[in-house]
Amino acid sequence: MFILVTYDVDTQSETGAKRLRKVAKECLNYGHRVQNSVFECVLSEAQFLIFKSKIIKIIDCNLDSVRFYFLSKNWNRRIECLGRETAIDVNSELII
Amino acid sequence: MFILVTYDVDTQSETGAKRLRKVAKECLNYGHRVQNSVFECVLSEAQFLIFKSKIIKIIDCNLDSVRFYFLSKNWNRRIECLGRETAIDVNSELII
Repeated sequence: MFILVTYDVDTQSETGAKRLRKVAKECLNYGHRVQNSVFECVLSEAQFLIFKSKIIKIIDCNLDSVRFYFLSKNWNRRIECLGRETAIDVNSELII
Repeated sequence: MFILVTYDVDTQSETGAKRLRKVAKECLNYGHRVQNSVFECVLSEAQFLIFKSKIIKIIDCNLDSVRFYFLSKNWNRRIECLGRETAIDVNSELII
């Protein structure tokens, strides 16, 4: 399934900056960065559950926000880009 | 239709910072901010076309990136949030 992941991590504190790095690293392991805090992922349900559990362990639920958007089967027809484009490579290796 | 808008505007220059403010302002006119650079919009096709044309006029296509993701009809079941949550209010007034 295609999942879009977006995040805002509160970086006011040193621990926030650390959480941001960790969230970004985990997203890079599971998806393809298309914008600074936006990743496109093609994952199985099992992979998604593991990914999500890792994110839960990293973030501060009171300060940070991570959102997952599930696009339907024809997801490649459901994306439109303006400006700089970074397309997803669904054949690229998934590093977990 | 439900459209998720994400953007990265290059703010290295003064003109970039100005573009960022303009993009954010336009997104606020058409959608609901859920993260710093992420907006959820419920728009008609006509509204979307006007919105997109405004964004095109603002951004620098070589430096900035704006992405639109179209979620299908059951979009409210296709979003999952961790941490801070800002839900969309589809009944809120659209300022255009």
